[in-house]
Amino acid sequence: MAGGSGTRFWPLSRKARPKQLISLMSGDTMLAETLARLAPVCPPERSLVITAARLVDAVRAAAPELPSAHVIGEPVARNTAPCMALAAIVAAQLEPDAIVALLPADHHIGQPERFVAALERACVEADAGHIVTLGVAPTRPETGYGYIELGEPVVGGPSQAPTGSDAAVWSVARFVEKPDAQTALSYLRGGRHLWNAGVFVLRADVALAAIASSLPELSAALAPLANGGPHFTTDGFVSALASAFPRCPSISVDYGVMEHRTDLRSVRLDAAWSDVGAWRSLLDHREAGASNYVRGDVLDLDCEGSVLVSEGPLLAAVGLQGVAVVATDDAVLALPVERAQDVRTVVAALRERGRNDLL
Amino acid sequence: MAGGSGTRFWPLSRKARPKQLISLMSGDTMLAETLARLAPVCPPERSLVITAARLVDAVRAAAPELPSAHVIGEPVARNTAPCMALAAIVAAQLEPDAIVALLPADHHIGQPERFVAALERACVEADAGHIVTLGVAPTRPETGYGYIELGEPVVGGPSQAPTGSDAAVWSVARFVEKPDAQTALSYLRGGRHLWNAGVFVLRADVALAAIASSLPELSAALAPLANGGPHFTTDGFVSALASAFPRCPSISVDYGVMEHRTDLRSVRLDAAWSDVGAWRSLLDHREAGASNYVRGDVLDLDCEGSVLVSEGPLLAAVGLQGVAVVATDDAVLALPVERAQDVRTVVAALRERGRNDLL
Repeated sequence: MAGGSGTRFWPLSRKARPKQLISLMSGDTMLAETLARLAPVCPPERSLVITAARLVDAVRAAAPELPSAHVIGEPVARNTAPCMALAAIVAAQLEPDAIVALLPADHHIGQPERFVAALERACVEADAGHIVTLGVAPTRPETGYGYIELGEPVVGGPSQAPTGSDAAVWSVARFVEKPDAQTALSYLRGGRHLWNAGVFVLRADVALAAIASSLPELSAALAPLANGGPHFTTDGFVSALASAFPRCPSISVDYGVMEHRTDLRSVRLDAAWSDVGAWRSLLDHREAGASNYVRGDVLDLDCEGSVLVSEGPLLAAVGLQGVAVVATDDAVLALPVERAQDVRTVVAALRERGRNDLL
Repeated sequence: MAGGSGTRFWPLSRKARPKQLISLMSGDTMLAETLARLAPVCPPERSLVITAARLVDAVRAAAPELPSAHVIGEPVARNTAPCMALAAIVAAQLEPDAIVALLPADHHIGQPERFVAALERACVEADAGHIVTLGVAPTRPETGYGYIELGEPVVGGPSQAPTGSDAAVWSVARFVEKPDAQTALSYLRGGRHLWNAGVFVLRADVALAAIASSLPELSAALAPLANGGPHFTTDGFVSALASAFPRCPSISVDYGVMEHRTDLRSVRLDAAWSDVGAWRSLLDHREAGASNYVRGDVLDLDCEGSVLVSEGPLLAAVGLQGVAVVATDDAVLALPVERAQDVRTVVAALRERGRNDLL
């Protein structure tokens, strides 16, 4: 899933180059990192990227190892449930009994081999017909994520509690909204809650059946593509998609499908996952022992807890404490890391002033 | 005097474009501001700019109203005393009884009409054969400047103390080095000390006689130019300067000439003078009521006490307190305003790393 158009990494991310297409954690784009991480389980010829139609060319350039038709553009944004349906339809064309792993293209995983192990474990459950979520083992009392409340262990028994390092499979008791700080702390201590990272693994036919049951209007909208519709590598598919997709309801997988299920399973992911949500979160990805997160042509003199990124000009920073400075050829952002979310205010102000060249 | 190669306004100022050639306080360069301020007393055809040889073309471009020969390049840097000698030699060629006003080209004066009045008063004293300094009425207990300790009032009597707003002429008791904070405060309260702004006004013949007396080796070095030497508008002058100037001792007017005099006079300058010494000092030049000093394409959201300057990219700053961010097309500087002097460390580090493209 590479359709995001987030502005949280402005000025590096732009409308034409959202977060999944920028390099934050390595020399590669977040998208290329995601595909590389999946390769041991899912090689390029079985990988699909579903993105916004206007980003198709940029995504193809960022993922040249993928067959061109495997980059599919949504003509309009419709949240994640239609994306899952589309993925399931196309995956079934590739392999009738395909398993679909639905993954955001802009997350970071510090320990990819653990991620692969969790994904393989999830595939075993999915192959047996289960809908599986990857739940991230929490490392702090985070109030910014939804949680998965675990039910009973499916594999390994109670002794293999989620505080261990192995992937374990649990039934899902329920999805929990973003908690307050005290509740988040109790979740962290209790060991019965995982972060909902929006990663789902399930058989294509199970996905389509679940959607037909929970979101019949979505099934109806995409019916011209499913069941003997045009192959996804053909022009017929593209034009059918162009007319069908706008009719889909805009709704997330979580709300549209998962909330209605009582038969979900969760595989625990303990692999240094991060959604890299804002400039501030890059501080968690500093090099070992480094005071600051530094990328590009940066001269860092005596700074601490700062995010210093340049994509063009030399950035010289002296004595900054907890400040993010991000420089590109046509825009520079400077703000305290604690106010990283205010980048939205900047983008809104630029939009208001008609500075579309900078968005 | 426009020979400075200061680095305190990096990245706006560069080796090829020092402070006098950048625009800080208006759309004009500091040099053009200086010339415009002088124009009522000293029109372009009687103005001379003495700069570094490598800056001659840039200075001519910044001061197109000056006759080309009136921009004189020093082949090597030799501090201000040789500059004064050179100015006196050339001024005497323009007018035998010329008065020379030796002024830095990179200062700012908020009330130019008061400056003109003080300069005219100084010219009256200079015409009578006195060596005159313009002393700036202190407005704060500044420890970063040298002071002029006043002797007796020459005009107006004791009732016209330097706390009034009119220019007044005093004898100079002595020059005082940069004081400590307590001493500076006593100077401010005592009303008998003025800031030494490095501005001198004196007849050309008086200047040459003073130099001959205090710095005979300087007189000797420039002898080929003086007394019937080649006219400053000729190629002969340029080549004579090229061979003579490197032989001059490197010494300031203050130490080389003024310290030896007991007959100095000081005219009080109370005209919102500022040497604009560092990024921090721009805070003193904020627009009335403004929280920040802002120049160029800047989006300032909720900042305070900050210096926000861009010469190229859009600079978006959010919630900064006391931070200077300066952006150009190839370099960005960010540091607390209180550490503005550390820009020198940046420049030194770049030099060490061979980043001459940025210096």
